[in-house]
Amino acid sequence: MHLPQALNALGSLLGQRLSTSKHDLDLHGRSESYFALTPPDAVAYPQTTAEVQQIVRICAEHGVPVTGWGAGTSLEGHALAVQGGLVVDFSQMDKVLEIRAADMDVTVQPGVTREALNQELRATGLFFSVDPGANASLGGMAATGASGTTSVRYGTMRENVLALQVVLADGRVIRTGNQARKSASGYDLTGLMVGSEGTLGLLTELTLRLHGVPEAVSAGVCAFGRIEDAVDAVLDTIQMGIPVARIEFVDAATAAAFNAYAGTSLPECPHLMVEFHGSPEGVAQDSARFGEIAEDHDGLGFQWSTLEEDRRALWAMRHNAYYAILASRPGARALVTDICVPISRLARAVTETQADLAQASIPGPILGHVGDGNFHSILMFDPENPAELAEAKALSHRMVQRALDLGGTATGEHGVGMGKLGYMQREHGAGWDVMTTLKQAMDPQGILNPGKLIRPR
Amino acid sequence: MHLPQALNALGSLLGQRLSTSKHDLDLHGRSESYFALTPPDAVAYPQTTAEVQQIVRICAEHGVPVTGWGAGTSLEGHALAVQGGLVVDFSQMDKVLEIRAADMDVTVQPGVTREALNQELRATGLFFSVDPGANASLGGMAATGASGTTSVRYGTMRENVLALQVVLADGRVIRTGNQARKSASGYDLTGLMVGSEGTLGLLTELTLRLHGVPEAVSAGVCAFGRIEDAVDAVLDTIQMGIPVARIEFVDAATAAAFNAYAGTSLPECPHLMVEFHGSPEGVAQDSARFGEIAEDHDGLGFQWSTLEEDRRALWAMRHNAYYAILASRPGARALVTDICVPISRLARAVTETQADLAQASIPGPILGHVGDGNFHSILMFDPENPAELAEAKALSHRMVQRALDLGGTATGEHGVGMGKLGYMQREHGAGWDVMTTLKQAMDPQGILNPGKLIRPR
Repeated sequence: MHLPQALNALGSLLGQRLSTSKHDLDLHGRSESYFALTPPDAVAYPQTTAEVQQIVRICAEHGVPVTGWGAGTSLEGHALAVQGGLVVDFSQMDKVLEIRAADMDVTVQPGVTREALNQELRATGLFFSVDPGANASLGGMAATGASGTTSVRYGTMRENVLALQVVLADGRVIRTGNQARKSASGYDLTGLMVGSEGTLGLLTELTLRLHGVPEAVSAGVCAFGRIEDAVDAVLDTIQMGIPVARIEFVDAATAAAFNAYAGTSLPECPHLMVEFHGSPEGVAQDSARFGEIAEDHDGLGFQWSTLEEDRRALWAMRHNAYYAILASRPGARALVTDICVPISRLARAVTETQADLAQASIPGPILGHVGDGNFHSILMFDPENPAELAEAKALSHRMVQRALDLGGTATGEHGVGMGKLGYMQREHGAGWDVMTTLKQAMDPQGILNPGKLIRPR
Repeated sequence: MHLPQALNALGSLLGQRLSTSKHDLDLHGRSESYFALTPPDAVAYPQTTAEVQQIVRICAEHGVPVTGWGAGTSLEGHALAVQGGLVVDFSQMDKVLEIRAADMDVTVQPGVTREALNQELRATGLFFSVDPGANASLGGMAATGASGTTSVRYGTMRENVLALQVVLADGRVIRTGNQARKSASGYDLTGLMVGSEGTLGLLTELTLRLHGVPEAVSAGVCAFGRIEDAVDAVLDTIQMGIPVARIEFVDAATAAAFNAYAGTSLPECPHLMVEFHGSPEGVAQDSARFGEIAEDHDGLGFQWSTLEEDRRALWAMRHNAYYAILASRPGARALVTDICVPISRLARAVTETQADLAQASIPGPILGHVGDGNFHSILMFDPENPAELAEAKALSHRMVQRALDLGGTATGEHGVGMGKLGYMQREHGAGWDVMTTLKQAMDPQGILNPGKLIRPR
């Protein structure tokens, strides 16, 4: 790596938009997770694809690692420059380029956040569905294959990215996909890029699928005496084909954290939170059918509403869960686990995880997007106490092993980054070698986000 | 290529299941399209993944091309061994390995056809949704990224393949994906394999997503005086979010061909055929809303039914369209075009194509999966008259150029094979080079289905 020469060239290109200030480096050395501070050597703030192309060319020439940065909300350290080099911060590429309402799609720059996009779409009757909770950047969401509460109905980023513009490791710019809703024209490069975590290219433009704002929305919450009953109710809902738009599980500890954080008075037991989208008659019928299922599984009364204020309150709780849980142990940091299992194994995965957590000395409330078989435990540890971090890692490790034993995946939505590298061999076997082969073919120098996703050299 | 040595080794492995009979070679040298007879050097009929692995190892050792064969229903010559070598016919790998009703998925061998699978699923209340018309093999459908009438609601093969077992060019066996409904664990190798047309590996096992058989189904048909009105009705239906399960367009010539073929008495003008899946109340409401849209666009009366016999008659017509159209010109062969455009450009793409066809000396009825923006013209030519084949190719060429001009794709669902190779550069530009790079990394010898999808060497 010839860093000084690269920084000279980058400085000529970007002027003030190349930063080596300690403040900037530290800001881009932090993650929302438990990883140690990892400041890069410099931060670039490009404004155009052409600038990103020039940046990558300069870094390629001088062998300098390049790591993309969206909103910094990744939980697996994706955006940390673990081998030093340059972080490319896309916050100044934040324009919604074109809304095509008739085609129900939109083209954006990577730095647009999902909330900013939905704000911009308000007058169109359309919305962008993928909702990971955090106000992540759309580039980061595509790069990490994000999903969230609505994926059970509208899909993850994989299903919602139609086309990309990508700067490759050698500075070439390609376009993958197009506006056609389906295509059988060659390898699915869009699908290869989504979830590639910046290791195959930097995303400089995204065309995203939009959905019509439903005519009516109903949302509700139901408490259950036992976790198994709540999970069985999810299973029945999915298997009966009730078109649930969201179906979220929170355990008793999460409900208690909500109450403490937001002054609510939920019973301190497991809950399901659901939402239905459709016509007024349709959502009423879906809500009624879900209510019957909940009753069959000893639900403690399902209450639902189509009023926007009620729904907002309900989902604000869910979206604030992470902060509510963190607030329940002041000073703690969190290791957030993320496994996904076939839905028939969900009850077993959740109850075994809960039993494991019951033996632990640190708290780990459970919540998740259970319609997909995906759930998390938010393991809180005292950052001053290495034994607690070690225990959190051990609990997370056993959760992943459990998921893989049950035919699931080490990460449902948070990605590999650094945190899940150690499970790639077991999950993919020779398939991981294939990923490494693809990486070497596309980035032979290994300058794009080194240390993530693929086998370390 | 050391063919004799390879055939010796293959003969020892497979015995009678390696064939070099003229009958077998000719059978595997034909396609359902206009390509010339292209017999391979031999045909293998493996029964297990281990045999496929041995076959590929032998072919790799001796530099012999390997081309997969499912049911031979491809329209772009995918399964033709254009550089000679071995065709691997998967018809003896035709077992449904495991139906997991609770997880709503199934694992099959590649030679299972979609109709055989749905037959096997009859008692489960589940069905496999992708329906390209032909009774294709599921391995072939995954390899070519097939879709069809129901994709507007349930997605294409890309959305319905959860996991694969793949034999790579060097004989390694990998598993991609797993039973989890979503995963952010590394590059989406499943997605890379779907639509790769046998150029990156041979699919030996598929795990497919199933859907619940809807409680109620309604289907109906509506004639329109003008193509533009029919297409505008599609646009409104999609944009209003009516959850149509199928929405098919047929033009006046296709309606006339139906009448002649099946003794029906459709008005000889453009039609839309639609289907709705849901609760009895839901499908009645959806049908009524579609009826209003049709009326707004001067539809000539929308008739719908929830009776199975009526629906079967309707879709039998649609499924037999290809044969009905071929029968309308005895002795003709067909070149079936396959473009897909953003839905806002659909009316323009269809009407410009119709105007072009009106000038032609050969007939080319238009029909398609218009909810996705995808449509076909079935261009019929006299196989004894080279000028007619040339005219068909010229019409197809102009259709593709039109699709690309309108921001669409050269192939919505039939794939690249040989027929669309010439458009890859224009559609993908440097992206096609990336596909070639990936191919070279995964199959450096170029033995897997050479001559398809990627840039010829």
